[in-house]
Amino acid sequence: MAVTFDDVEAAAAAIAGAVEHTPCARSRTLSEITGADIVVKFENLQYTASFKERGALNKLLHLTPGERKAGVIAMSAGNHAQGVAYHARRLGIPATIVMPRHTPMTKVRLTGKLGAKVLLEGDDLGGASAAATRIARDEGLSFVHPYDDDHVIAGQGTVAREMLADFPDLDCLVVPVGGGGLISGMAIAAKAMKPDIEVVGVEAAEFPTMQDALAGRPSRGGGPTIAEGIAVKTIAERTLAIARDLVDGMVSVSERDIERAITVFLEIEKTVAEGAGAAALAALFANPDRFAGRRVGLVLSGGNIDLRLLASVIMRGLVRDGRIVSLRIELNDVPGALAAVAGVLGDADANIIEVHHQRTFSDNSAKATDIDVVAEMRDTDHADEVLLRLEDAGYRVRRLSSDDGRAGSAGKRGS
Amino acid sequence: MAVTFDDVEAAAAAIAGAVEHTPCARSRTLSEITGADIVVKFENLQYTASFKERGALNKLLHLTPGERKAGVIAMSAGNHAQGVAYHARRLGIPATIVMPRHTPMTKVRLTGKLGAKVLLEGDDLGGASAAATRIARDEGLSFVHPYDDDHVIAGQGTVAREMLADFPDLDCLVVPVGGGGLISGMAIAAKAMKPDIEVVGVEAAEFPTMQDALAGRPSRGGGPTIAEGIAVKTIAERTLAIARDLVDGMVSVSERDIERAITVFLEIEKTVAEGAGAAALAALFANPDRFAGRRVGLVLSGGNIDLRLLASVIMRGLVRDGRIVSLRIELNDVPGALAAVAGVLGDADANIIEVHHQRTFSDNSAKATDIDVVAEMRDTDHADEVLLRLEDAGYRVRRLSSDDGRAGSAGKRGS
Repeated sequence: MAVTFDDVEAAAAAIAGAVEHTPCARSRTLSEITGADIVVKFENLQYTASFKERGALNKLLHLTPGERKAGVIAMSAGNHAQGVAYHARRLGIPATIVMPRHTPMTKVRLTGKLGAKVLLEGDDLGGASAAATRIARDEGLSFVHPYDDDHVIAGQGTVAREMLADFPDLDCLVVPVGGGGLISGMAIAAKAMKPDIEVVGVEAAEFPTMQDALAGRPSRGGGPTIAEGIAVKTIAERTLAIARDLVDGMVSVSERDIERAITVFLEIEKTVAEGAGAAALAALFANPDRFAGRRVGLVLSGGNIDLRLLASVIMRGLVRDGRIVSLRIELNDVPGALAAVAGVLGDADANIIEVHHQRTFSDNSAKATDIDVVAEMRDTDHADEVLLRLEDAGYRVRRLSSDDGRAGSAGKRGS
Repeated sequence: MAVTFDDVEAAAAAIAGAVEHTPCARSRTLSEITGADIVVKFENLQYTASFKERGALNKLLHLTPGERKAGVIAMSAGNHAQGVAYHARRLGIPATIVMPRHTPMTKVRLTGKLGAKVLLEGDDLGGASAAATRIARDEGLSFVHPYDDDHVIAGQGTVAREMLADFPDLDCLVVPVGGGGLISGMAIAAKAMKPDIEVVGVEAAEFPTMQDALAGRPSRGGGPTIAEGIAVKTIAERTLAIARDLVDGMVSVSERDIERAITVFLEIEKTVAEGAGAAALAALFANPDRFAGRRVGLVLSGGNIDLRLLASVIMRGLVRDGRIVSLRIELNDVPGALAAVAGVLGDADANIIEVHHQRTFSDNSAKATDIDVVAEMRDTDHADEVLLRLEDAGYRVRRLSSDDGRAGSAGKRGS
């Protein structure tokens, strides 16, 4: 194996001071929720809000003076771009970042603000990658690969080194997996420091690329996922070989588990996780039995999530937990009808936040109307109770649910 | 003065181990944004997500064995309730928390889960407070006041002690002010440790209660504010006397500045601040000149914000920054009209997130229709550019703004 624990140790010494030794903390509440003894590593508190700085900086520090002068190039629309751009500027190395065309302008601007030259090339990550390789060759730039590189892998390994330094009693590390750079480096460090530790990788169900590669199957990845940072279609031979030797298991997580993990991080830990950053906690939600009673270290790998997406994840979570409920209620189309039903809802402690009238598309008599009421409830039990109160008051009511394509069932008693 | 630095030192020793020594960190990005050298004290990372535990625990530790056995009572619908409930249970002290009727059930449940008996009494904080005083007397319970208490003040003072231990070079502390418990304790500690440090209090503009009290005016507080934790109508004589001696200045912050500070904490520090918790950063936005170039310690006092409110603050922030824009566009009511305008928006890199047709209330010919398009833009400059592109394509378009009561102006060129 090309990368050793000595390389991780050397990387730790090399990047010290320029990369945060981020906090690592036991969480009592996450432990209660999951049934495991949870320690969280807050890599979202790096300056560019992800662990990617570690590998990127370690790579930059291994360039020759001539290579530094010529400059570096990387392909990434995300955290790797920011990690490379930030440390290249710190070190006075010219950096070019290639992103696919149609990359959201916010990302382009963020990376540009960190001092890199940003080029938009190719229609997707593959096209951008090919362009970056070509430009690197044509212009004599050093290519900083996000994971297929020994120095990058050694740098990412410092995450495990810090976690085990802070919490030597961990039984298990749960690590998000995209191209495999983070888990390879962490597995090398962790198994050297504590040979019986278990290292478990997490992939978004839509991108089970490492699982496919380990099984020798072609990659099936490709659906939409909120975990952009690990939506990777190819594992490198280099990281695959390390994973085959040192990774003990893999877990797939659904979009729903990832979204729930983002919300729980906000509500409980008061911290912002991006989709990939929440994947490790999502793995505990997906497979609680696998981890129950064990001391589990989760890597919260990054916190760069678009704020509009975050707001939407919050609202979807409130709907999922029955804290925001949409009800379709049949009313007589007469003055006072809305006041009456609003009164029943208010008495039942439901807080109305939106009302829409549905007339044109209603199946009812033209003398009746459907109203859709969006209201805050305490939880699903309270929502059931509110539905029963409405039915007891004589209303025909149906619960609309975002999960069932806006057609759902009424309260426990049915309607 | 009844409370001394020795009391704060004693409180620090008493609560050590049971209350977090929370992180305190310099923020390069907040420093760039504000023009001051910013250090943030993350009291939102306490177990119950606010500094209130410090004072509450210090008070509980000063009860006699008989008082402990009889139990304690407190009045609060917020962070003080959770701080008292949590530490009372840890110490085996029966706790009763009085909240006003109509307190959101989530808060009742959260405090109940921490082991306290929750009573709903009175129509507002005044009524609940009167009930709590009466019950304390009738049942022989010790009253744990949220701020009018020397032991509570000494406990809150430990925040400043930790900040100056971690960052002895601070020139100024900026502290949210409700009833004045936090700032009194912090001022006593800070002035003892560093006599020339400036201590500045922050109030929500809707609740300038300390400013009124210092000026000898009746309290004017009372409007709606997102900073519930500092929406207090009465300062105690005890905290007022300390503030008069030791607080160097007060700043009022608008709801808009508080909302912006919440968003900036999320986006930059990846951390969740409640309204009161964001007030200190808001003070830097409100008064940048007052703090420019100085080493300023901000207390992020708490992180308990309702997630729906947080989502709403995020969306309002995106609208404020021109990143989400609502446009009213006049269209001919014919097939293909929407496709054409959507094409112009797409070419201009604006991402459509909602479309509504306005027919019934339109001033236009029945052959025309207004559509309201909500779209994501990069920033206000981009939004102006998009408007010009639409006008150049021949559309009549108006920008709807949440700030101006949904009537706004078009792009820079006018329409």
